Amino acid sequence: MAAAKLDVLMLSVGADLPYLTGYEAMPLERLTMLVLARDAAATLVVPELEAPRVVPDASFVIRPWSEGDDPIAAVAELAGPVARVAIGDLTWTRFTLALQAALPDAHFTPANTIMSPLRSVKDAAEVDALRHAARAVDAVAVEMRTRPFGGRTEADVSRELVDRMLERGHQRANFAIVGSGPNGASPHHDAGDRVIQSGDVVVCDFGGTMNGYCSDTTRMFVVGTPTTEVADTYAALAEAQSRAVRAATVGTSCAEVDAVARRSLAEHDLADAFMHRIGHGIGLEAHEDPYLVAGNSTPLAAGHAFSIEPGVYFPGRFGMRLEDIVVATAVGPESLNVSPHDLAVVE
Amino acid sequence: MAAAKLDVLMLSVGADLPYLTGYEAMPLERLTMLVLARDAAATLVVPELEAPRVVPDASFVIRPWSEGDDPIAAVAELAGPVARVAIGDLTWTRFTLALQAALPDAHFTPANTIMSPLRSVKDAAEVDALRHAARAVDAVAVEMRTRPFGGRTEADVSRELVDRMLERGHQRANFAIVGSGPNGASPHHDAGDRVIQSGDVVVCDFGGTMNGYCSDTTRMFVVGTPTTEVADTYAALAEAQSRAVRAATVGTSCAEVDAVARRSLAEHDLADAFMHRIGHGIGLEAHEDPYLVAGNSTPLAAGHAFSIEPGVYFPGRFGMRLEDIVVATAVGPESLNVSPHDLAVVE
Repeated sequence: MAAAKLDVLMLSVGADLPYLTGYEAMPLERLTMLVLARDAAATLVVPELEAPRVVPDASFVIRPWSEGDDPIAAVAELAGPVARVAIGDLTWTRFTLALQAALPDAHFTPANTIMSPLRSVKDAAEVDALRHAARAVDAVAVEMRTRPFGGRTEADVSRELVDRMLERGHQRANFAIVGSGPNGASPHHDAGDRVIQSGDVVVCDFGGTMNGYCSDTTRMFVVGTPTTEVADTYAALAEAQSRAVRAATVGTSCAEVDAVARRSLAEHDLADAFMHRIGHGIGLEAHEDPYLVAGNSTPLAAGHAFSIEPGVYFPGRFGMRLEDIVVATAVGPESLNVSPHDLAVVE
Repeated sequence: MAAAKLDVLMLSVGADLPYLTGYEAMPLERLTMLVLARDAAATLVVPELEAPRVVPDASFVIRPWSEGDDPIAAVAELAGPVARVAIGDLTWTRFTLALQAALPDAHFTPANTIMSPLRSVKDAAEVDALRHAARAVDAVAVEMRTRPFGGRTEADVSRELVDRMLERGHQRANFAIVGSGPNGASPHHDAGDRVIQSGDVVVCDFGGTMNGYCSDTTRMFVVGTPTTEVADTYAALAEAQSRAVRAATVGTSCAEVDAVARRSLAEHDLADAFMHRIGHGIGLEAHEDPYLVAGNSTPLAAGHAFSIEPGVYFPGRFGMRLEDIVVATAVGPESLNVSPHDLAVVE
């Protein structure tokens, strides 16, 4: 904070707070906020009725507020006459606007300025947590290879993915995209009422939270024998994904990993069909720094954990994506997802 | 907007956007924002890969942005040289700070200034949606009266509540608090590994989202015959809750409804055990305006929908809460939850 010339750090909803304290703020209209002034004791301002949920810790003081109290005034008082405030990125704007009014002389900056460098480099215990979560979704991916898809709705398959993630040790399923046939061409398609047909290519992109850390994998399925076009397109995608994983070495820029996949797809005239970045960091949040995207010159460091997920999309026809979580290490990239990478033929 | 002297409304995550457009922004690092300038066409700035999810509507223009584009600049350009901006309450602070930097002459105010009066008064179709959601959790509450509690973990009962809410037509379960014995004294207790014992008082507070609108009810269970203290305390709580429901008439202030329950509990020396407000508005969000709390002099209007949920908490021993969703109407308060209000004796 001294190096960043910050006087106080204010953290509310989002992963920064649990990263520092183990406590996750409830996303409610009652403000929870850790006030960490430089050279002062950290204080957690928390609604009285949530205070029993906080596990006391020597690293911070708990200050409950009661109905009728003004938590904004409490935070402003704890901050004191500050010049530079870093405030959690996901903090509700209504609270930030109120704090700006209460601290009119302060300059507010997003907390990721100082939190992201800390959080993006995972230590061994964090990598282990990510690996366990990854292996749990790998097990689900393997199980799905022997399950029927044809004749079921996307929503039904999605529900099964959720159930299996929970069975395999996730406390929470964060998403379970099932995009069949033309729906697969919408990368963030919600699983819906469409009944999966014979011949359909099906995108399954699913992940959750296990012991605080997130999983995220995408595997591809086809109902019955794939056409030559589908098989060839998938081979090109898998090649691009594999090349990008191998390129994710310490010191390589985030942008370059993205570019490797794009150049690989261009060899098959598929670059135009890949319109999103290749990946995002992952940890306590499903999406966090570093983002592997054109323009991000940040070099990968040992302990960076991120997705490698190129995709190709053909509106009105089908889409495909292949995704692993990868950790950059001193001895090269480690893919945490190890389930089979081929296009799974299902019934 | 003219009356509120607002030049532009900016809506991102949260319920204001779907209220106006039917589209819900994904809570992601890629910005989705509706820009509604006074006297101009509304424009939805949306990530290219989520654009296929937007159902086109004559009321707004869709403006997708691609990876590498700057969505903040796009929003600022659409807003133009504005003086007063209303921005969605739940917007991520990182985006608000970036927009403040891009529009340095603008004054930012929370969007609830103009959205809350619109959203808090429900029309007949909205009340109907709330009623359907309420009846679905009522059915779950009735089912639970014949289910065993003793010997099961809180987490197991919570999981059953979630499953039953989904079976009864909810698309999403938002929470399923199960607080047994001493855990019930923490109003927002997470269902955990505690095994429910004979004699335990158990708080079950659960709700979800059904066709866009939220449910929320609390019913009380006791494993085996309750002690006289438990039975008497519950009778006092149920009396306070019933009185508060009857007090929730059009024109009565939010604060007065809260005070009615507090006075009723005071007759039994239980006022100190009730440390939270009596209720919150409900609709597209589980908690929204109006808040029924001391200090809120807002009079109830026909169409206001809110919870009435007094509780009494005895740290280290047990807690109790009883909750219905109520709508203020011209002919008096209508309780949308109609499942039995007695303390259910279970095995």
